[in-house]
Amino acid sequence: MTNPHNPSAEDSLIARYFKPLATDPGALGLVDDAAILQALGSDIVVTTDAVVEGVHYLATDPSDTIARKALRVNLSDLAAKGAVPAGFVLTLALRSKEDAWLRPFADALGEDAKTFVCPLLGGDTVSTPGPQMISITAFGRVPQGRMVGRTGAQPGDRILVTGTIGDAALGLDVLKGGAVANALASDPHARETLISRYRVPQPRNALAQSVRDHATAAMDVSDGLAGDLTKLCAASGVSATIDVTSVPLSAAAAGLIAGKVVSVETLLAGGDDYEVLCTAPPAQANALIALGRAAGLAVTAIGTIVAGHERPRFLDGQGQELVLKRLSYSHF
Amino acid sequence: MTNPHNPSAEDSLIARYFKPLATDPGALGLVDDAAILQALGSDIVVTTDAVVEGVHYLATDPSDTIARKALRVNLSDLAAKGAVPAGFVLTLALRSKEDAWLRPFADALGEDAKTFVCPLLGGDTVSTPGPQMISITAFGRVPQGRMVGRTGAQPGDRILVTGTIGDAALGLDVLKGGAVANALASDPHARETLISRYRVPQPRNALAQSVRDHATAAMDVSDGLAGDLTKLCAASGVSATIDVTSVPLSAAAAGLIAGKVVSVETLLAGGDDYEVLCTAPPAQANALIALGRAAGLAVTAIGTIVAGHERPRFLDGQGQELVLKRLSYSHF
Repeated sequence: MTNPHNPSAEDSLIARYFKPLATDPGALGLVDDAAILQALGSDIVVTTDAVVEGVHYLATDPSDTIARKALRVNLSDLAAKGAVPAGFVLTLALRSKEDAWLRPFADALGEDAKTFVCPLLGGDTVSTPGPQMISITAFGRVPQGRMVGRTGAQPGDRILVTGTIGDAALGLDVLKGGAVANALASDPHARETLISRYRVPQPRNALAQSVRDHATAAMDVSDGLAGDLTKLCAASGVSATIDVTSVPLSAAAAGLIAGKVVSVETLLAGGDDYEVLCTAPPAQANALIALGRAAGLAVTAIGTIVAGHERPRFLDGQGQELVLKRLSYSHF
Repeated sequence: MTNPHNPSAEDSLIARYFKPLATDPGALGLVDDAAILQALGSDIVVTTDAVVEGVHYLATDPSDTIARKALRVNLSDLAAKGAVPAGFVLTLALRSKEDAWLRPFADALGEDAKTFVCPLLGGDTVSTPGPQMISITAFGRVPQGRMVGRTGAQPGDRILVTGTIGDAALGLDVLKGGAVANALASDPHARETLISRYRVPQPRNALAQSVRDHATAAMDVSDGLAGDLTKLCAASGVSATIDVTSVPLSAAAAGLIAGKVVSVETLLAGGDDYEVLCTAPPAQANALIALGRAAGLAVTAIGTIVAGHERPRFLDGQGQELVLKRLSYSHF
C-alpha cells in the first residue's frame, strides 16, 4: 500500500556512517529519536543554516568539503555570538547513498566535529529526488544573558572584521571559469587558495570568548560585508563609515583589484566570507585586535559606527563615497 | 560574478510570514542569526525531523496541513520523550515563494506553535530547484536526567499505545486512489477522516508528563508499530508478545479489515501514526491508562515485554503468530 521499502536502510546508514560521530553521551548513540543537551547553567545559543547543492555548493565539490562547509557555516554563527560549541543535529536529504560520497562526507564531518569540539547529537536522513541538501542546527553555550547580539553597536564604536574579505566569492568565480579563473590561469596556488576559501570556511571560534568579552555587537559575514554591516547597523539603529582601503584583502584579491579584474565593490558584496564582523569601543577594539594577534588571527579595524539611520557609507582612499550597486549576495 | 540577486528577498519573506510567529523573547524577533534557548534548570531534549515533498507529503497536500505535519512529527517525538515543548527552528527549502502557498503555511504553523506552546525561535530559508522540504529541529524541557529513553523496558512491563493504529497509512492509500479509496467510494466521511490522519498527526503532548512519570521506555510510532516496537525492544535488550486483537483500530480501519480490503499486518507496518508507544510495569500502566482517559485520550495495553532477544511476536485471536512480511514503512 505504501512504497516499496527497506526498513533497516536508514538505520544501517546511520550506524555505518554517523554513529561513530555521536561521541557525546547526550547523543544516546543515535538509537533514540531525541538527544539530551545539558545546559550546564548556560544559555543555549541555537543557530540553523542549510546548504543546497547547486545553490550553496557546487555539485562537483568534493563531499568532504561539503560536509565541512555545512558544519562550519553554523560554527561561524556560534563564534560571532560568543558561544562555545556544544553539539549539532544534522538533516541529510540524499539522492543516493553511494559510499564514495558518504564515506568522505562522514569522515570529514567527524574530523570537524572533533576539531571544533562540537559533537553530532542526532539527525534525520531522508531521500529526495532533487538536489542534495544538508541542514544543520548547531548549539553553543554562553553564560546566561551574554550572547552577543546585533543590536548593541554604539556611535563611536570601531568596526572590526577578522581574516580577509572577498576570497570566497573569487574562489567561486574560479570554479565557474569566470574572469578570475582566466586572470589566474598561470597561478595554480592562488586559484587553489581562493577555491579553498569558498569550499571550506574558517570559522573564528578561537575568538568567541574575546568577542563575548569585548564586542558590543557581532555577526558573521556570510552574505557580503556591505549587506551584513547594513543589517547590523539597522538592528542597532545606527549608521557607519567604512574606510574601504582598510578592508583586509588577501594578496590574491589585492592583485586582482590592482589588475582591474574585479572591483573592490564586488568583494564588499561577495558572499561566503564567514568572518566575524563586530563593533567595540576603541579601547575594547584594541584589546580584540591584540587578542586576535595572540591567537594568530588578523582582526582589522575598518571603520566607525556613527549616529543616524542612513545606510553605511563606504569611502575610498580619497574620501569619496563608493556607490555599491548591490550590498550582498543572495541565493534568492 | 555571483548570481543575480535580491538582497532583501529572504529578509522580507521572513518578516512577512514568520516574524509574527517569533513570539518568544529568545527568538530576538528573527533579526539575529541565532536564538537563545533558556534551559531554566532543565535538560534540553532535541529532536529533528524533515518532511520532503513527494516523500513524506504529497505535492497536492494543502500547505497548511504540510506546516502542521512538519511541526507535529517533531512534537510527537517530544511527547514520547516526556518533554514539554520549548520552541523550534525551521529550515524551509522553497522552490517558489507564492503567497498562496506561504500564507496558509505560515498561518497554520503559527496556530500550531501557539496551540502546543512551541514558539518559532529561528530558521533558514533557502531556494531549491527540487522538491520542497521542511526540516524542523524542536526543543523540549525535562527535569535533569528524566528524558524517557528507549532502553528501559523490562520483562513483565505492559506495552501501551495511544490512539489508533494504521489510519494514516489508509489515508495515504485513499489519496493515491488505491484499494481503500475504492472500498470507501460511498463513504466520504471515512475517507476524510483517514486522509486527515495522514496529513495532520495528533501528537500526544498532553500525555507527556504522564509518560515521564510512569513509563520505563517510550518512543513515538512513526514508521509502523511493528518496526518501531522492534527497535524499542532491541534498544532495551528484550522481546515482546503482542495480542494483535488488542491493537486499537478506528471504526474505519476495523471495517476495512472485516471487509478484507486490507490486512491487519498492513496496519501494523503502516507509517505516520504518530502515537506514543511505551512500556510500564502493570500498576504504572494502569495509571497511564487512567491518566489518558482523564485527558480524553485512549491508551491501550496491547501486549507484554518478555525476556529474550527475538523479534517481538504478534499473536492473532487464536494465539497463532502472524508472519509479518515487513515491519515498517521506510522512505528509503
